[in-house]
Amino acid sequence: MANQEEQFLIPLDEYLKVGIHIGTKFRTKYMAPFIYKTRPDGLVVLNVQEIDKRIRLAANLLSQYNPEDVLVVCRRENGWKAVSLFSKLTGIRIFAGRYPPGILTNPNLKTFIETKLILVVDPWPDKNIVKDALKIGIPVIALCDTNNETNNLDLVVPCNNKGKKSLGLIFWILAREYLKSKDKELKENLDKFMEE
Amino acid sequence: MANQEEQFLIPLDEYLKVGIHIGTKFRTKYMAPFIYKTRPDGLVVLNVQEIDKRIRLAANLLSQYNPEDVLVVCRRENGWKAVSLFSKLTGIRIFAGRYPPGILTNPNLKTFIETKLILVVDPWPDKNIVKDALKIGIPVIALCDTNNETNNLDLVVPCNNKGKKSLGLIFWILAREYLKSKDKELKENLDKFMEE
Repeated sequence: MANQEEQFLIPLDEYLKVGIHIGTKFRTKYMAPFIYKTRPDGLVVLNVQEIDKRIRLAANLLSQYNPEDVLVVCRRENGWKAVSLFSKLTGIRIFAGRYPPGILTNPNLKTFIETKLILVVDPWPDKNIVKDALKIGIPVIALCDTNNETNNLDLVVPCNNKGKKSLGLIFWILAREYLKSKDKELKENLDKFMEE
Repeated sequence: MANQEEQFLIPLDEYLKVGIHIGTKFRTKYMAPFIYKTRPDGLVVLNVQEIDKRIRLAANLLSQYNPEDVLVVCRRENGWKAVSLFSKLTGIRIFAGRYPPGILTNPNLKTFIETKLILVVDPWPDKNIVKDALKIGIPVIALCDTNNETNNLDLVVPCNNKGKKSLGLIFWILAREYLKSKDKELKENLDKFMEE
């Protein structure tokens, strides 16, 4: 356990403090692989190691993309502050609140945008963008709580996707890992910048 | 001199290697404060300390803005690779080549964009965007060689703005400083992310 903890993206305490592992009273079959246990009061709790592992996978996937090729969507108000700060730091576009319909699928719209990767804060309130992403065939990362269905998603990040602090910490980690990857890229790219 | 060199953004050698200080055979009165000397063959050479100081000022100004609020414009082909990589790393938008007229001034255009800061690679070929920025009253940073006029510019960065390697190094430094500032912001913002 000690070894595994050392490999966490942040100290275990930080995860637990924001309740990143605290789910809902509902559990779907889809989320079974990520569930640690159901508490006596009926609350379903997620496995923190799985959470950490999946945040890392999401960060790695994000880092394969340029900022302009990613779109983060968050209908739920509890995530607006987190995604706004994430956007400010990374340059990645967000829709906090209702997103204009057809932006991914209708090239005739003024609001039409091209994107290569979607991240949604909750595939239930954000279900329309998930459908649109499926139509145009681009991958979707989704934060999923114990009550979510995960069909049509490409990468599930199990977590408490409802609490402000939990979402704040998740997007803080994702921003940090994204900036780290860009910094690494920068170091590798000096030669590319300099060659004629 | 030793002390000053230590405070350069990168080792002096790196600057000299790419000819960041090598100007043109023309010198304008505007650029006089940044000129070191005219060589016997007529080539005008810039002061490297002034270059370094001004790149730092430009980096500081850029870091006050979110990526989506900045636009970099580069008509000259020798800078396209540099600005593309800069955009990829920072999420800042660029126009490499001709920029669509009216994008800053005509809100009825599909291509209309709102921006708060402009950086141009050369105020001569990029003169239209400088004019548009003046019309809407947003600041302009410009890389300026010994032959440039600097009226209507808010921040002049004296440098060789024609060589591929020189532009590569300048945008590499600007990208690095920009990412550093975002990383600093990230560290300061953990509390903001976490508070309820």
